[in-house]
Amino acid sequence: MADAPYKLILLRHGESEWNAKNLFTGWVDVNLTEKGEAEAVRGGVLMREAGLLPDVVHTSVQKRAIRTAQLALEAADRHWIPVHRSWRLNERHYGALQGKDKAQTLAEFGEEQFMLWRRSYDTPPPPLEDGAEFSQSDDPRYSMIPSELRPRTECLKDVVVRMMPYWYDAVVPDLLTGRTVLVAAHGNSLRALVKHLDGISDQDIAGLNIPTGIPLTYELDADFRPLVKGGTYLDPEAAKAAIEAVKNQGKKK
Amino acid sequence: MADAPYKLILLRHGESEWNAKNLFTGWVDVNLTEKGEAEAVRGGVLMREAGLLPDVVHTSVQKRAIRTAQLALEAADRHWIPVHRSWRLNERHYGALQGKDKAQTLAEFGEEQFMLWRRSYDTPPPPLEDGAEFSQSDDPRYSMIPSELRPRTECLKDVVVRMMPYWYDAVVPDLLTGRTVLVAAHGNSLRALVKHLDGISDQDIAGLNIPTGIPLTYELDADFRPLVKGGTYLDPEAAKAAIEAVKNQGKKK
Repeated sequence: MADAPYKLILLRHGESEWNAKNLFTGWVDVNLTEKGEAEAVRGGVLMREAGLLPDVVHTSVQKRAIRTAQLALEAADRHWIPVHRSWRLNERHYGALQGKDKAQTLAEFGEEQFMLWRRSYDTPPPPLEDGAEFSQSDDPRYSMIPSELRPRTECLKDVVVRMMPYWYDAVVPDLLTGRTVLVAAHGNSLRALVKHLDGISDQDIAGLNIPTGIPLTYELDADFRPLVKGGTYLDPEAAKAAIEAVKNQGKKK
Repeated sequence: MADAPYKLILLRHGESEWNAKNLFTGWVDVNLTEKGEAEAVRGGVLMREAGLLPDVVHTSVQKRAIRTAQLALEAADRHWIPVHRSWRLNERHYGALQGKDKAQTLAEFGEEQFMLWRRSYDTPPPPLEDGAEFSQSDDPRYSMIPSELRPRTECLKDVVVRMMPYWYDAVVPDLLTGRTVLVAAHGNSLRALVKHLDGISDQDIAGLNIPTGIPLTYELDADFRPLVKGGTYLDPEAAKAAIEAVKNQGKKK
């Protein structure tokens, strides 16, 4: 077992085909756009330039995170490190909203309901029925999850509950061996993890946005808590600009 | 534990940058060419069309095999399966020949010596000194291999010796659980495995060529021996043509 500080790198996938189309995605397995691929490569270049090289990578089972990890690791000459994948790192399941246009949903349900589904900590959208369009009930990658455990919709609180066992049982043991660990995942699975790491309240987490493609690095103490709250982005100015852009987007509505 | 027959798929990586340049490659970590990428995608399409879908993949730690697996699995919609990597599945270490032009080497050393290095079972090329150009002695991906175990050159016999522990300890346990196993690797690590599976003699193995990018499938009995000797290529006509082409190439020399 190695001594603290332990090194953790979080990487949110770049733009996906449905980000570009403004559709709710959730567990639907869409690919990266060319822009998203370029973001992933840049994430790898940033790691290489910082000399912060992962020894092991954990991803979700969704293509946009898997490919982000592959492209970033190739750019960092770390394509050969061990890989682990889990549905527990997946994006939040967006329930019956999966596949729906965000602007249309806003118009149909009104801003209050829309923002509740998007940003409240504990209000999930209506569930998506098994067998419905955009359901993953027949997807073989989830066949090992018993029906009672498989999400049909999730709020961020649900993501925290299903993600944390993976943090404790798979990521922490890798950190303990002294390896630099990369977690390549999604906006909400990473927000869930950062909520835990930084001890963010159920209220304040609504205001946290993690930019795409910019590695967020943490040094963790012996209790796996950050030495610097909020961690450090490898390109802090780009991260700040991206976070501001999201805030201003919200104001325009 | 599942019952036999167990399902195994072997996939040799497509054309690499140094195949295209006619250089000895071995452990040098070159990338696929565009042609090699297309071969990998076609391998995945063949698996998908045959309904023979891997549940887990094992690769070497070399980019050309890693990317072949990634591209094939994406084409088969199996990018999300568990991944394992080991140097024991690497290409044969080509010793002091690594980085050398094949035609120049043939001219310099003569056909007899050249063919002995290429095709004899137990004559390795001269070793490549640690720290020399095209040596991997400082490559972090091999830092966990103690010096006495790390190859500086290999004949096919050496590849068999270092590959077989991975077959027994990593691949067979996956087969035992009933999973369809994909091994994405290299000309010589796959020849070593096929030599074992089909019980090919030290003499006869010289005549075995495995085409690139065409999945070679085996059904294995309870002793992990083939039901059909030699296995079955998913595109038998393309495989036959590729094998004939290599034979004729040899005759022209």
